[in-house]
Amino acid sequence: MAQQFTYETLLERVVAIFRRAGMNEVQATALARVFVSGERDACKSHGVYRIEGTLRTLKAGKVKGDAVPRLVDDGGQGAVVRVDAGGGFSNAGFELGLPVLAERARALGLAALVVNDCTHFAALWPEVEAVTAQGLAGLVMCPSYATVAPTGGRAPLLGTNPLAFGWPRPGGQPPYVFDFATSVAARGEIELHRRAGKTLPEGWAIDAEGNPTTDPEAALEGAMLPFGGHKGSAIATMIELLAGVMIGDLTSPEVLDYLGTTALAPFHGELILALDPAKFSAGRAGDPLARAEALFAAIEGQGARLPSQRRFAARARAEAEGITLSDDEVAQLDRFLELGLDALD
Amino acid sequence: MAQQFTYETLLERVVAIFRRAGMNEVQATALARVFVSGERDACKSHGVYRIEGTLRTLKAGKVKGDAVPRLVDDGGQGAVVRVDAGGGFSNAGFELGLPVLAERARALGLAALVVNDCTHFAALWPEVEAVTAQGLAGLVMCPSYATVAPTGGRAPLLGTNPLAFGWPRPGGQPPYVFDFATSVAARGEIELHRRAGKTLPEGWAIDAEGNPTTDPEAALEGAMLPFGGHKGSAIATMIELLAGVMIGDLTSPEVLDYLGTTALAPFHGELILALDPAKFSAGRAGDPLARAEALFAAIEGQGARLPSQRRFAARARAEAEGITLSDDEVAQLDRFLELGLDALD
Repeated sequence: MAQQFTYETLLERVVAIFRRAGMNEVQATALARVFVSGERDACKSHGVYRIEGTLRTLKAGKVKGDAVPRLVDDGGQGAVVRVDAGGGFSNAGFELGLPVLAERARALGLAALVVNDCTHFAALWPEVEAVTAQGLAGLVMCPSYATVAPTGGRAPLLGTNPLAFGWPRPGGQPPYVFDFATSVAARGEIELHRRAGKTLPEGWAIDAEGNPTTDPEAALEGAMLPFGGHKGSAIATMIELLAGVMIGDLTSPEVLDYLGTTALAPFHGELILALDPAKFSAGRAGDPLARAEALFAAIEGQGARLPSQRRFAARARAEAEGITLSDDEVAQLDRFLELGLDALD
Repeated sequence: MAQQFTYETLLERVVAIFRRAGMNEVQATALARVFVSGERDACKSHGVYRIEGTLRTLKAGKVKGDAVPRLVDDGGQGAVVRVDAGGGFSNAGFELGLPVLAERARALGLAALVVNDCTHFAALWPEVEAVTAQGLAGLVMCPSYATVAPTGGRAPLLGTNPLAFGWPRPGGQPPYVFDFATSVAARGEIELHRRAGKTLPEGWAIDAEGNPTTDPEAALEGAMLPFGGHKGSAIATMIELLAGVMIGDLTSPEVLDYLGTTALAPFHGELILALDPAKFSAGRAGDPLARAEALFAAIEGQGARLPSQRRFAARARAEAEGITLSDDEVAQLDRFLELGLDALD
């Protein structure tokens, strides 16, 4: 027997759990929003499943649940907006910075939001979608922890370093959005293969000696591989440079050193670029949003799919029929609400 | 018997060929620089080999060899610097815009250079390297012509859409640079397989019915595939959006419609982002350039290579020993210099 929630009732429940665990309102609300959005979009690996990891990271003292993010003013002149997340979750920092980022991007044509000193434990698409809701294109990236070997290498160094992009679409349509790891697979997928006793597809991982392996145990002791060979490896390295060293925050190997484990949510920074199609196309023929629709129609017209369509279909279903959690999931939420951090082993 | 050139003597020769073919000084010099740089770096497919295609495109009237690029002033306030290439080659437009881009990026933290209405027929790494020479990180992208099917599709729509990135390195070292097509392979590689009577590796292409093929003939009548499956397809689509529709310039399918062939150099726009590590890291611990060196050392320390190293090694050799062209290559240069556009069939 499962239980139904609306977005709002589930949000209220998750916020209450986070408050019970000692998080302040701004942290609890921002993080709950992205997990409930994940659940709504049938993106289970980024849904309420993540609450437990959040509580573990809080309990380990590796994130500040009561942090108040702070806008670091540059005098309002530059294209770089900086938020000091104060050791809290990235999401509260992002929510604080977004209106300033959008205003600056509309004024200058493009702008960047840097979120420093944050724990990042959510998908990037909620942030990309929030940028597109401002009529802007968005590009978001962050490191993770060292679990991926560079192409030609033999040991974990790069993170799964997600890259996400969004483009606004007219007429109330959901935006064009992609959000993916720059590793072939997510670490969770390897763990799922291990639990199911299945071998991995070729090309996902290497063992501790640097040799290709399809054994999930050996892969977890070795390293994952970047998607697309040396090209994906180069993109993952770029993300270390831009969203790690350039913004003065930790790279994936530094994150792993800091945490000492991949069982807690990673602590690092995040880079968000916002670009204004109206400014970039000013004085040129054609409306960029209309021209983008023609491109999307041509892609779909030949039988290819736009990314995120399954997620948007799930969202439409959830908005009509509610979000369904299993009895086990509801029981776990109840336990977290009752016991707070004591619910953890 | 081969012939030796210095960078300067080869540059002089190529500029003279372009001048003989009716190009003005600014167009001839900027384009010659990138082809001679390609030759110097043993990047033959982007070296003097490209002169013939340049002359063909000039002869077909699809590029203006006498165009004078023009900076489109926005009052100097924004982060978007725009150059109208006036139907000439992108390179002259880029050279005009670069100092303004660099100044704006240093002032604001990041800035974009848009080059509109240009023919682009060169690698992107010369531009990325020019950005890093200003102490800035650079990200460059442009469409091409429709030769690549989106993942799940069956017909050419996207271009090979190159993506290039550069990061400055201290102590006179060449920068960290990658520059690659977002297709699995370049179109020229498929052509080379066809001429050699070899089959293609799996995963490079589909035939005209949308089925996987390893037959180069069938691939040339069908479509190439993006690198890295749906992830590469999404990145190639992002490039159509940002460096095509957003900047008010042609997308890859529109370029093919305009030219009617892939035998001439493509006409479109280009987007260059420049980011200032000094501004982005201001107020944070650690020098970003030094921290990047630690990352590069860790990559190389486990036996992986940084991109472009073979090219930089070839450059060092050419600087010490000169650039070697075969007798056939020299004879062709002589013919182009003597006959101009009449040297073409």
